[in-house]
This record gives sequence, structure tokens and C-alpha cells, in this order.
Amino acid sequence: MASNAMTSSTVEGPPGTADVAETAGAVDVEGRLRMVGRDIRRAMLAAVPDAEPHDWLYRLVRAYPSRPGKALRPALCLATCRAFGGRDDDAQGAAVAIEMLHNAFLVHDDIADGSERRRGRPTLPAEHGPGLALNAGDALAVLAHQVLRRHALHLAKNLGDRLLDEFDTMALRTLEGQATELGWRRDTVAHLVPEDYLELIMRKTCWYTTIHPLRVGALLGSGGRADLRPMVRFGFHLGAAFQIQDDLLNLVGDEALYGKEINGDLREGKRTLVLIHLIGAAEGSDRRTVDHYLRLEPYERGPEVIAEIRALFDVYGSIEFARAYAEGIAGSAQEAFEAAFADAADGDDKDFVRALIPYMLGRPR
Amino acid sequence: MASNAMTSSTVEGPPGTADVAETAGAVDVEGRLRMVGRDIRRAMLAAVPDAEPHDWLYRLVRAYPSRPGKALRPALCLATCRAFGGRDDDAQGAAVAIEMLHNAFLVHDDIADGSERRRGRPTLPAEHGPGLALNAGDALAVLAHQVLRRHALHLAKNLGDRLLDEFDTMALRTLEGQATELGWRRDTVAHLVPEDYLELIMRKTCWYTTIHPLRVGALLGSGGRADLRPMVRFGFHLGAAFQIQDDLLNLVGDEALYGKEINGDLREGKRTLVLIHLIGAAEGSDRRTVDHYLRLEPYERGPEVIAEIRALFDVYGSIEFARAYAEGIAGSAQEAFEAAFADAADGDDKDFVRALIPYMLGRPR
Repeated sequence: MASNAMTSSTVEGPPGTADVAETAGAVDVEGRLRMVGRDIRRAMLAAVPDAEPHDWLYRLVRAYPSRPGKALRPALCLATCRAFGGRDDDAQGAAVAIEMLHNAFLVHDDIADGSERRRGRPTLPAEHGPGLALNAGDALAVLAHQVLRRHALHLAKNLGDRLLDEFDTMALRTLEGQATELGWRRDTVAHLVPEDYLELIMRKTCWYTTIHPLRVGALLGSGGRADLRPMVRFGFHLGAAFQIQDDLLNLVGDEALYGKEINGDLREGKRTLVLIHLIGAAEGSDRRTVDHYLRLEPYERGPEVIAEIRALFDVYGSIEFARAYAEGIAGSAQEAFEAAFADAADGDDKDFVRALIPYMLGRPR
Repeated sequence: MASNAMTSSTVEGPPGTADVAETAGAVDVEGRLRMVGRDIRRAMLAAVPDAEPHDWLYRLVRAYPSRPGKALRPALCLATCRAFGGRDDDAQGAAVAIEMLHNAFLVHDDIADGSERRRGRPTLPAEHGPGLALNAGDALAVLAHQVLRRHALHLAKNLGDRLLDEFDTMALRTLEGQATELGWRRDTVAHLVPEDYLELIMRKTCWYTTIHPLRVGALLGSGGRADLRPMVRFGFHLGAAFQIQDDLLNLVGDEALYGKEINGDLREGKRTLVLIHLIGAAEGSDRRTVDHYLRLEPYERGPEVIAEIRALFDVYGSIEFARAYAEGIAGSAQEAFEAAFADAADGDDKDFVRALIPYMLGRPR
């Protein structure tokens, strides 16, 4: 992590984020994510039936869950649960379910985007074709539901009902975001400003990456007593910082750590904050270059086209813009965190969630 | 219906099915399906949010549910519920949920199969591309769950938990069947006998078309007291008759009524009972013709190839074999029905379910 340029830019960032970085220094975020990741991976694999058809379904279902991911979502859910008075057991099923649904989304995203690499290995559609991959993604979603439902069996009816309701709402928000992102690309939508981007990632990323884990962690940790509304604002800022960093890693990350094709977003024409900045800033012949790029199909976006757009990012400072924007959002996240966690117990768990804010900007993958 | 050759072949069928056909004559199956279809369609559309993104998500989500389908699954569920002592309200949410999940499966199947027509109109992937269609299918599955969960809210916890558990189990069985069918095609599996086909459709078709509607109808109608186990055997035979007829309609149906491309299965290389019979029966150069056909990709199966296989079906009597096989299964279904519905009240609802057995073989779509 120390080798990553963005870590130091966070540490040396504006005054508002300085104490965040200090707190982050005292908390071993990576270590906790690794530990949670191991547990959740084991639980996910245990939830997959050891049954036929093995080669056409359950082997595919196991593929992504067995590749180490970030485990950010379950770690956030579990830490929030404990900070609000619960034990790990109170949220374990919910944490496993959210990570499994995340894996289901990854499979379907890889089909929609025609992606080649995921977590350092070939994607399921690249290896098995779109039909079997689509079906395996569907099965991951059903298994996620099964895990969640079995967790809810042990809860009071009212609490269990709320948990399942949160899950369906979250899934729907994510699909709304995915639809908008695909729609922007299909219809060559170019008149976009950063606010459009924020509204998009609020649905596509934040809801399932941060808002849902936070809400469900607080719900289960407090036995239904916590006010979940402030979690939306905090989760939005935290998730936005996460997504902007994800967009940046796709451009400037270390492919071995990042696990996906560098410049994959550029090939797909994904409307990242970086690209939206360039769309707004480019003038004259540069503007025509960008418009031409937007109208191409992904397979037509060869290395020269990609290099041209990459060069324009430098000319117009689009990457620096996105970095600064993410730091601003991280500042807002800190303030929203204090409001959302005002009633939570001080200690390791609350510190971990707070430390996730600068971690979002410094993470190498 | 009277114009369909298979109706008369059922009426004039072997002695075992004669009284079934008579009962069917007294029950207006089509009329009841139309009525239930209207209600369920209205309820499905009401369950779809009137929200953004409209053009990229919710318009697509509404597409298949607004095209009149057979409504077989909800009608079976509701009639079973009433026959076991319940009212329509006791199973309405479950009936709507199963039809919505059916629509979700149709969208994903159309992507996997590259199908062009569905219910007489272009498929979602043909109209909007695979990415947006995949996403809309996912949303249909989430909305189905939401409808089911809201129905379960009004039930005792134990009954609601059982209902949701039945739903997830059913979804998983279906995905297992879909995986096997796609796997057979991808790996050019040819050593198949009718028993393999039955095992396949048990999962892919019967579980969600007949077994689940029957089990859930009996569960909710009886308030959890009915023995659901005999429903598996009855549902299996009923669903198998349904699926074989579906395979036949794909070959000999009226495209306007059937709503899909005639010979679509042949183009896809789908292992229907008809094809499996031919694989087992063809000899000499015919066998080589079949093997060659099996190895082709769908896009390579032009009109001549299709016509050649169609001609071999006639030479070897494969279509007649499948028809006779379906009639045999319908006979078993009748016996299994009497066992499964022994404790159900006599009357219109029980008669309707009984009448579905010959209807499966006579239906024109």
C-alpha cells in the first residue's frame, strides 16, 4: 500500500482529512479485511450445495466466492453490528448474503460488459460462455437469499421481515443503477455532469456496498432500535469515495493487485467521473475526438483510441479532478460518520469504520 | 383447440386416458386460465414500481408480464389452494410471485438461447441487447421475491418461512435443470436416453411449473396441514406431459398461437424427447447426419440442416414416439393425482386440476 501514490496524497490531503488519516494509521484495516474475508469465503462456499450438476453449475457458482475479494461489505456490516451492541453471530448470515449477492452481480456485470479478467483470473463468461455464466449468477443470488432467510429464522418476526425487506430494496436499487449505466452507454448519452454520476453510483454502488451493510449492521446490532436513516448519507459518501477510487484504479492501478483489465472501463465506454470531466472540459478538435470515441462500439476501441483518450485525461487534468473530488467526498463522509455513529459504542469497531474512509482512497485494489 | 390434431389423438387415446378426456370436456380449462391470467397480469404489473429508470429498466420489466401468457402456474396454485380449503387470497401473492419468476426465467432463457420471438413479439434481448435484458430479468426475480415476502407477512411465522423456503428450493431446482440442458448442448452430449430427459425436465420444468404451484397451493390452502410429498409425483407427471407437448408445439405448432419461432429448439440443438429418440434410433448414414447436426453451432444450422433432421423425425417416427410417451405419462399423472388430492374437497377446483392432465396434451400454445 505504501507504494501507492494515492495513499500519500490522502495523508498529505486537505486539513479536513488529516485526522482521518491518523486514525487510519492506528487501525489495521487490511488485516481485519483479510480475516473477515477468510471467514466469509468459508461460509459462502459452505452455502453452495455439493450436488449435481457440478461441472455446469456448482463449480461455476463456487468460482468467484473462492477467489479472495476485498470483503469490504461483510467487514463493514459486522463492525457496524458490533458497534451498535451486537455480536458477530447477530449479523453473520446477513454479511455472507451480501457478499454472495455481490458475487452474483459481478458475474452478471462481466456478461454485460464482456469483461475478460476478474480477481486475476478469467471471468466466468470468458471461460464457460454467457449462458452457463448467467445461470450461475442467478444461482448465486438464490443462494444469497437462502442464507439470509436462514439467518432471519432465528430473529423475531418483525426484525426478520425488516432484514429481508432491506435486502430486496438494496437489490432493486443496484439493478436500477446498472440499468442507467448500461442505458447511458447504449444510447450514447454524453450530456452528463458530476451530479448525474453521483446519482448513478448512489444506486449502482453505494446502496449495496455501504448503505445496506451499514443499515443492516445497525439494525441487527441494536435489535431494531437504531435509527437507520443517517446511514444513507454516510454510506453514500463512503461508497462514492470507494467507486471513484475504483474508477481510478481501472486507469492507473497495478493490474496484478487490481485483478481486472486496466483500461477496461475505457474500452467499455463506462461513464466514470474521469470521463464525465473530460466530456465537460474538452474543446474544439478534442471534443470531436471524445464524441467519436463515445459513439464507437467496445470492440472498435483499439489501443490507439484508448491512448488518445488517456492523453486527453492528462491534458485536461481529468484524473486529478476525480482524485480531488474523491477527497472532498471523503471529508463529507467523515462528518456524516460522526452523525450516523453518534449512538454507537467507542472502540475497535467504530474505529475500523472510521478508518475505512481514508482507506477507500488509499486502497490498491 | 378443435383444429389441433393432438386434441383428437388424446380423445382417441388409450383406454387409460379416455375418462380423463371426458372430465376435461366438462371443465372450461381455457376459460379459467384466461380469467386467472387477467387477474395475475394486473397484479404483476401493479408490483412493478412506476419509477426511473423507465426506458432502461421498468419498461423492460413490464414487457413480458403484459403479454398474455398461459397462466397455468398461478391457476394451478390457486385451484389447489381452494381444493385444500383455502380462499384465493390465501395464495394470491404466491401465485403472482411464481408467474413473475417464470417471466424472469423466460428473459434469461431468451438470452441464453438467442431466441427472437416470445409470446408473438420480439424477445427483450432482441429488442434491447443482452445487458439490459439480463438486468431486467434480475429485477423481475427480485420483484417476485418482494411480492412473495409481502404475502408471507400476513402468515404465521412458521407458514411464511415454509413458503419462502419452497420458493428458493424451486428456483434452485430450475437453475440446476437449465445448467444441465445448456451443458448438454455445449459439450455435445449425445448418449442420452428418455430417462435422462425425464430427470432433466423434472428440474428444469416440473419443479416450477407444477410441483411448486401444487405444493404451495396445498400448503397455504390447508394452513400447513396437508402432506405435500405426493405433490412431487403428481407434479412430475403433469409437468412432463406439459414439457413434451411444448417440445412438440415447437415442431408442429401454429406459430401465431405458439408465439415462439417454430423449429427454434432444432436450431438451438435442444435435447428434446423427440431428438433423443432420433439419436437412439438413427443408423448408418442417418446416424452420421445426426452427429454432424449435433456438433454444429446454432448459427450454422440453416434451413437445409433443419429440414434434414425434420425428415429423419418422420423416417424414425420420433414425433409419434414422443406423443405416445406423453400419453403414457398423462396416464400416470391421473393415478398420481388421485393420491395427491385424496384429502381435497370435491368440486370445481379439484375438477379443474384433474382436467389439466388431458389439457396438457391438447393445448395449442
